[in-house]
Amino acid sequence: MKINGKSYRTVWMDGGFIKTINQLRLPDRFEIISINHYRAVIHAIETMIVRGAPAIGGMGAYGLAQAIDQLPDLDHHKIVKIKQEIQKARPTAYDLRYALDFVYNRIKDEQNLNHMKQEAKEAAEEYADLNVAACKQIGEYGNGLINDGDKILTHCNAGALATIDYGTALAPLRRAHYEKKSILVYVNETRPRLQGAKLTAWELFQEGIPHVIIADNAAGYYLQKGTIDLVITGSDRIALNGDAANKIGTYAKAVVAKANNIPFYIAAPISTIDFKCASGDEIPIEERDEREVLEIDGKRIASKGSHAKNPAFDVTPAKFITGIITEKGILKPEEIKKLDT
Amino acid sequence: MKINGKSYRTVWMDGGFIKTINQLRLPDRFEIISINHYRAVIHAIETMIVRGAPAIGGMGAYGLAQAIDQLPDLDHHKIVKIKQEIQKARPTAYDLRYALDFVYNRIKDEQNLNHMKQEAKEAAEEYADLNVAACKQIGEYGNGLINDGDKILTHCNAGALATIDYGTALAPLRRAHYEKKSILVYVNETRPRLQGAKLTAWELFQEGIPHVIIADNAAGYYLQKGTIDLVITGSDRIALNGDAANKIGTYAKAVVAKANNIPFYIAAPISTIDFKCASGDEIPIEERDEREVLEIDGKRIASKGSHAKNPAFDVTPAKFITGIITEKGILKPEEIKKLDT
Repeated sequence: MKINGKSYRTVWMDGGFIKTINQLRLPDRFEIISINHYRAVIHAIETMIVRGAPAIGGMGAYGLAQAIDQLPDLDHHKIVKIKQEIQKARPTAYDLRYALDFVYNRIKDEQNLNHMKQEAKEAAEEYADLNVAACKQIGEYGNGLINDGDKILTHCNAGALATIDYGTALAPLRRAHYEKKSILVYVNETRPRLQGAKLTAWELFQEGIPHVIIADNAAGYYLQKGTIDLVITGSDRIALNGDAANKIGTYAKAVVAKANNIPFYIAAPISTIDFKCASGDEIPIEERDEREVLEIDGKRIASKGSHAKNPAFDVTPAKFITGIITEKGILKPEEIKKLDT
Repeated sequence: MKINGKSYRTVWMDGGFIKTINQLRLPDRFEIISINHYRAVIHAIETMIVRGAPAIGGMGAYGLAQAIDQLPDLDHHKIVKIKQEIQKARPTAYDLRYALDFVYNRIKDEQNLNHMKQEAKEAAEEYADLNVAACKQIGEYGNGLINDGDKILTHCNAGALATIDYGTALAPLRRAHYEKKSILVYVNETRPRLQGAKLTAWELFQEGIPHVIIADNAAGYYLQKGTIDLVITGSDRIALNGDAANKIGTYAKAVVAKANNIPFYIAAPISTIDFKCASGDEIPIEERDEREVLEIDGKRIASKGSHAKNPAFDVTPAKFITGIITEKGILKPEEIKKLDT
């Protein structure tokens, strides 16, 4: 992605350090963080310095490779333990598990420490490159759904910042914009953490893509009025039956889109599909700190003495999903299971 | 309503002054404002010092009565002009027009200035008293829908603060609580202005009614999981066919409630029904300042350079409304037109 005219990925390896854009500082400040220990990797994922399923995957892959690189001796037991610890940092996103397995499976039978270190680094880099290629391809396929003049609703941030680069839901919008299609993106601000107002709006502004921020409450209004032609969101985990977990609020947007016959698409790489998960009922939903609801930017906004509940994701059943835009093409939710090999 | 142990109405007349609770200061500060000119009445309505359809109606009724009381001589033309100016302060709420007509129709043929002043004051007081009685009755009827142990979702603030007293959507909850039913209220924070987190949570806390604040995005999650037994919201204008305008976001909640077979009720006095309005398509939707979305409590939360759209209301079609709780009983949306006389 271009930031102030320079190209960046969201997370990358530089020497022995993992580098990532600190998403807690955006949009006010552009800051790169250096990480040199797996506990800092876990911290970065838990606190959402890095967020978005494929980006978390990248952080996890690099984190495991870095931890292996720092091992004084061949200790498979310790590698498994570190892998499990990183995996627990956030429960809903499947890409994290996928990326950790991607690295681990490459080295699990390796008996030479130096070979293992090299293999792990190469595997992490490959995960990142594959994600970039997948997102570009998602952009190509998704662009085919977009007509000149379309108004497209998106939720949360499924942009370059949520992936290694390009984004999932935003990749088709980038591509359409590059091809000079005139589009207008309706950005749900996405409470409680405001990833839409803070991150998606920032990305679109950096790219010069026309957009407008709306309160999450206003999405229904624009869907009802027929203002919106198309909805595209990302996903954190897709089940075998095509149910898809994504940022809290996605489900309601999908239900209202269907009630108004507006197509609702999920954009996600194959690495988001959990082939061991039969349906959305089995997807664990993370419950986060109530302060994310009661406070904004550290300042209390809610009445004192009241408490909040804060589920971070919801599951959109397959019947509300028009299609899933992957790097292998646009699939109907019921076609997901055909990918299982 | 009880505030720090003392009884208050939201708006009332005291000597020549209109008094109202400054809702822009809540929940941080409890402040009473004195108003002695109709331009200050308009300002209070426009800036949302007073908000909520029946409360705006009360402010309008008292405002017109006060303006008449301040007339040096009998000037029907001027009264009509003031009435029209107040009426334009907010376009969506029907109670404002209803309340102004309620006062105006009482004095429009009066030719004695002193009689007119007395009549206007009495009419405004009667509007207020009738609204209090209506809300109490809404509480009685609505309470019949609530079972011990119910979890009830509400949107925005349709509490005592939105009316003269008791509230509309919150009246049944108060009544159920007084009768020792165990209830838990899920309060949508209600972006952009956060009337749920700031006003409804404050009212419920003052009354000791168990409640929890959620991001608007989380309402769908709890409706989908079957956590919520019942949804009750207020309304700003009800059309003859049963369509109801209410705070932005209400429509989506109603659609998702129906998709999950959860009853969705509107609570509103008869004064909210616009018998000249055939359907929701005719209800004007106020578009407010984009800063309500881009800022919270005066601080920018959104990415710089981005803009916002901010429709303040949406219309829930009758087919998504299980019933309308009025002071004349719980009506099906299609029964509204039978009230027209």
